[in-house]
This record gives sequence, structure tokens and C-alpha cells, in this order.
Amino acid sequence: MVLGHGEVLTPVFMPVGTQGTVKAVQPRELEEINAQIILGNTYHLYLRPGCEVLEAAGGLHAFNRWNRPILTDSGGFQVYSLADLRGIAEEGITFKSHLDGSVHKFTPEGVIDIQRSLGSDVMMVLDECTPHPCEEEYARTSNAMTVRWAARCRERLAQTGPLYGKDQTLFAIVQGSVYPAIREASARALVDMDFEGYAIGGLAVGEPTDVMYRITEFCTAMLPAQKPRYLMGVGTPENLLEGIARGVDMFDCVMPTRNGRNAVVFTRTGKLNLRNARHRKDPAPLDDGCSCYTCRTFSRAYLHHLFRAREILGLQLASIHNLAFYLWLTSTAREAILEGRFSPWKDALLAAMHREETADTISPP
Amino acid sequence: MVLGHGEVLTPVFMPVGTQGTVKAVQPRELEEINAQIILGNTYHLYLRPGCEVLEAAGGLHAFNRWNRPILTDSGGFQVYSLADLRGIAEEGITFKSHLDGSVHKFTPEGVIDIQRSLGSDVMMVLDECTPHPCEEEYARTSNAMTVRWAARCRERLAQTGPLYGKDQTLFAIVQGSVYPAIREASARALVDMDFEGYAIGGLAVGEPTDVMYRITEFCTAMLPAQKPRYLMGVGTPENLLEGIARGVDMFDCVMPTRNGRNAVVFTRTGKLNLRNARHRKDPAPLDDGCSCYTCRTFSRAYLHHLFRAREILGLQLASIHNLAFYLWLTSTAREAILEGRFSPWKDALLAAMHREETADTISPP
Repeated sequence: MVLGHGEVLTPVFMPVGTQGTVKAVQPRELEEINAQIILGNTYHLYLRPGCEVLEAAGGLHAFNRWNRPILTDSGGFQVYSLADLRGIAEEGITFKSHLDGSVHKFTPEGVIDIQRSLGSDVMMVLDECTPHPCEEEYARTSNAMTVRWAARCRERLAQTGPLYGKDQTLFAIVQGSVYPAIREASARALVDMDFEGYAIGGLAVGEPTDVMYRITEFCTAMLPAQKPRYLMGVGTPENLLEGIARGVDMFDCVMPTRNGRNAVVFTRTGKLNLRNARHRKDPAPLDDGCSCYTCRTFSRAYLHHLFRAREILGLQLASIHNLAFYLWLTSTAREAILEGRFSPWKDALLAAMHREETADTISPP
Repeated sequence: MVLGHGEVLTPVFMPVGTQGTVKAVQPRELEEINAQIILGNTYHLYLRPGCEVLEAAGGLHAFNRWNRPILTDSGGFQVYSLADLRGIAEEGITFKSHLDGSVHKFTPEGVIDIQRSLGSDVMMVLDECTPHPCEEEYARTSNAMTVRWAARCRERLAQTGPLYGKDQTLFAIVQGSVYPAIREASARALVDMDFEGYAIGGLAVGEPTDVMYRITEFCTAMLPAQKPRYLMGVGTPENLLEGIARGVDMFDCVMPTRNGRNAVVFTRTGKLNLRNARHRKDPAPLDDGCSCYTCRTFSRAYLHHLFRAREILGLQLASIHNLAFYLWLTSTAREAILEGRFSPWKDALLAAMHREETADTISPP
């Protein structure tokens, strides 16, 4: 992908910077672990610091000093999950802020305007992310509106231009819950509108994993292979590998940073809970195949101590490592794909990750 | 000072790494801002992770990956301030851990042994830090015991050797509360024992600032000028400058990191409270005379946002800057001293810091 702030090689994992910062990680550290693109949440940034502050700063990149691409969601998902939802109508979504209870409205046109203020390289259309489970009739009606909203976003995009001199592109979102016929209608309608990229939304919302994989595969098969396909909000290392196997190019998830802050780290041989007593004197790095600052520098014993002593440094170091692991996973998947050995590489890695995983998943009191 | 892990130029400020980490700051960041020596707290490290873990790691330096000098206190001060004190006797101090209520004893010999386990470059003798106010008779009796404890520490030092092949030295602590006669008795007795360095303890415990300065000056005058003089637990930027003017070579204080985590930053033109609304759109760095990562990279507006949004990155960036400021203060004081212009430099800096200070000290709700 060639975006306003540079090129992105896929498949790619996008660290999540909800409030304009990837939690506990500095932008220079993201560069060090080869993050190519990060995500910002329109809902959060619109509420705080707000478009006025972001425009005064010259956009989100100038504000948070991340000079590589940024993707922003449309804010829809957070309205459903965080805000006090007041109503969804053809015009848009009315909600009360989770911060101060103030009432706001997101329309398809409005979220494009907000994302112009943010200056993100990739903007997302406003959609309704249906919950799981979801009645078929609701999913059909909702998706039809999501498609109409996508058309309105596209029109607003054409009527406006970037505020900071860098190209901004717009991705559509395929919805339709677990119903192939609705997913198909969604994908066909959006592909007809010719977006620069397509996301698969409404998954990883509680449905069984095999359903997620089946719907993902069903969607990617209908989306143009030469354009980026983005599986929103996914997931575990295994989910990423299975998504890549099914044609997904882009992922985002809070899992590496959130788990890191909770002392759970991902390694090439499975997950570790750093609070477990067995790490108390362990001089080994978190993952001896990892070249991140944390693994180059510190022992499991030290990380165990930091989490036991509730030191902020523990959150930082675990977050850096987990992101480095996710970024290694996608960049190594790319190499394997280019060299025609993705499947055996994936199978071997999954086997290695499962072997030790069970040993360390029980958290001490 | 030439210490086991390298040379230290004085006057020097020592960032505080109570539990084996300077809170929210990585060791590579401490190197970047030219920290020469950091402090560790014997009381905390003895309780958690404990000497067994630290010895298994090869000492505190190997554990927390700080390869420059470390000074450890004796643990006495924290026993008085944090633990549930059970008794002070000639033999030592009995206390209950603030972590789990377990009962422990610190003796002069024992704290040397613990500091051998830690492997700190500078060890401190066990002392009784008298509170303020303190009756003269109590201060006299207490100090006499502190002097006897210093002799016992010195003897234990001679009987033992470093565990990790690096030289460890021992500083004594002058006590005596606000009473010149007791301070004098303390200093004379300790200087007679010929320690490698001398600390001034029992100040910055609530006495008026002018008393702190007077007692400091009284003590430094009695301590050998060719050996390091360390004013423990002090203080504000002004306290450091006034201490240096009175012959102090070494300082430690949690103020830069604790204030930083509370959104208060020090600058060449006074303190800022980053939560104040006036910083909301301010594109300026925290301090345009500062070359730290925070000031090179981010605006006051971004820091304001991070603190408002309760993001960990705010704590990190403010801590880095405040430490960089303290380290700049002492290294620049050194230059000014060597060039014979310390007094005018100090007066000009204090005037600049006071001019704006009052404008930003009121915290919003």
C-alpha cells in the first residue's frame, strides 16, 4: 500500500493508539520494532482532545509525532461499545459521551470531516457493527444502511480535500453478521463503488472461531485481491496466521498491549504469565528468538519483579515485546509467502506455540 | 569519584530507583540524559525481590541492566517511614514489612551483608534518622548510637568482600537533628573513622528551609573537602543550587519522577502544571532550552492531552524531562564552578525560575 505518509508492506499488524498514543510505548520505540502503520480511534480523539486541538496542532501525526501512516476507524464501533447510545437512524448515530455525558451525532459525512481533521492516511466509513448473535432480518436491514452510509462517505470524500497536504484514502466495511447472503450483498455493493480498500467488520464479537474463519474466507474471496483487505479488531497470533492464510492483509488489535499491561506476553513457544512464581529467578529473555529492547536487555526474573512490584516499567517492557512479536509475525509471514513456504511455516509455528502454552496460563492470586 | 562501575563527576544528582527501576524510565533513557549514578533502596529490594533473587541474577546491576554506578541507602530511613517499627535497640532495628507484615531485623552488619548482595558501588551505614522536631537529648543519644553503628558497619565492610568483582565503598551519615553541637560531635567522630564519603542525614524532614541550609553549611564545613559530601533526600531545584553553594556534591530525591507522574514539570523558567487548560493548544516544548527526548519531540499540548486522558506515556515523558532537567542543573553547575561563575549563574537561574513559577502552580479540579 502506498499511503500519504509512506509505503506499507502487507500483511501488516497495526498497533492500536486509541487516544493518540499506543499505550505505554513511545513513537521512537514503535519505529524501532518496525511498526509501519498505527491505528487511532476517531470516537476517542473527537471527544478528547477534539478536532479544534488536533487542527491547531496540524493533525494527528504532528500532534503525536508519528510520521508513518495512521489508520483511523470511523468511531462507530466505540459508539456501540462505550458510549450511551441514543439512537441509530438513517441520518446517523446519536450518543452521549462516556466522558461527560454530552450529546453528539456521528453522520457518514461528519466522520469524514473528523477524519480530515485528524489527517489519517486511511479513513474508514461509518458503519453499524452488528452484535453476536444477531437476527438475520436485523443484519440485513442494518447492512443495507451501512452500504448507503458508505456511499455517503464516498461522496463526502470527493467533496473535500486533505487539510495537511497528504493524501487520505477511504476504506469500506463489509458487514452482514454470520449470514453469507448478506455478506455477499455487502461485498458486491461496496466493490461496485470501487473503494481503495475493504475491511471485514462485525467479526471477533463473540462468534465461535471457526465461524470467524469461515466468514473471513467467504468475504476475502469476494474482495479484489489487488486491494488491501482488513480484518478489524483481530486478534490472537493464531487468528492472524489463519487470517493471512485466508487472504487478509491488515489487522489491528489491543491484545498485545492490553495483555502486556496485564503481565501476559506472547512468545514463539507460547504465552507466558510473568506473575507466575516459576519466573522468579529465570535469567532467560522473554523470547530468545526476539530482538526487541526488552528481550535484548532484561530477564524474565526482572520482568516478574517489575509486575510483582507494580512498576510502570513492566507495562512498558511487556508492551514493547508483545508488539515486536506481532510485527515479527506479520513481517515473517510476508517473507514466507514471498518464498512460497507460508503453510509449513505457519503450521510449525502454531505447533511450537501450542506446546508450551498450557503450562503458563494459570494466573496466581 | 571513581567507583566500581565508573567515574562520577560532581556535583551530581542521583535519580531514585527505589525498587530496582527509576519509575517509568528505562535504563537506556537514563543513559541518554547522562545519569551517572542511580539510587536503590535497600529496604525495598531486601523485601522484594530479596537477596536470593538478586544474588542469582549477579547483583542489582545485572538484574536491572544499569551498568553505571549505583548507591544504595542502608534501609534505615524506610524502616522508620514505611514499615511498622517494632523497636530500636543497640543491636539493630526490628520491624514488620509493609508488604506482608513479616518480621525482620536490620543490624549494622546485616545491612552491609545485604548491600554486598546488591553489589552497589556506594553502600550506606545503618543510621537512625531523627524526625523533626526532635528533643535535644533524644538526638544526642540517637546520634551516639548511629556513630557506634557506623563503626560496626565499617568493621563488617573490612571483614567481607564484593560478590561480583567490583569495588564497593561505604559512606557514613552525619546526624544530630538541628543541634550544631551534636552535628559537630557526629561529624568529628565519623571523620576520625576515615570513611570514603559522608552523607548529611536527618534534613528535609520538615524543618524550615533556612534551618536546612544552615545545618548543611555547618556540616559541610566540618567534612573533608576532598571527599564526597551527600545531602540525602534533597530536594527542589533551588535546594540543589543552595546545597551546591554550601559544598554539597551529591543529591537524591524522588521529586523529579514523582512530580512528573503528577503532571508537574520543572523548566528553566519555573514549574508547569501540565493539566492546566492554558496548555491545551500550546505547540511549545516543555522547556525550549532542554534537549531531552520529550522536549525534542512533543508539545505541551500533547503532554496536556496525555495527562487528561490518563495515558501512561505522559508519566514516561514527564519523568524523562524532569530527570533531564535535574541532571542538566547539576552538570551545568559543575561547568559554572569550574569556570568560576557559579554564583552569578545560580542567581540568574533562580530569578528566571521564580518569575513564572507562580503563574502555573494552581492545579485544576
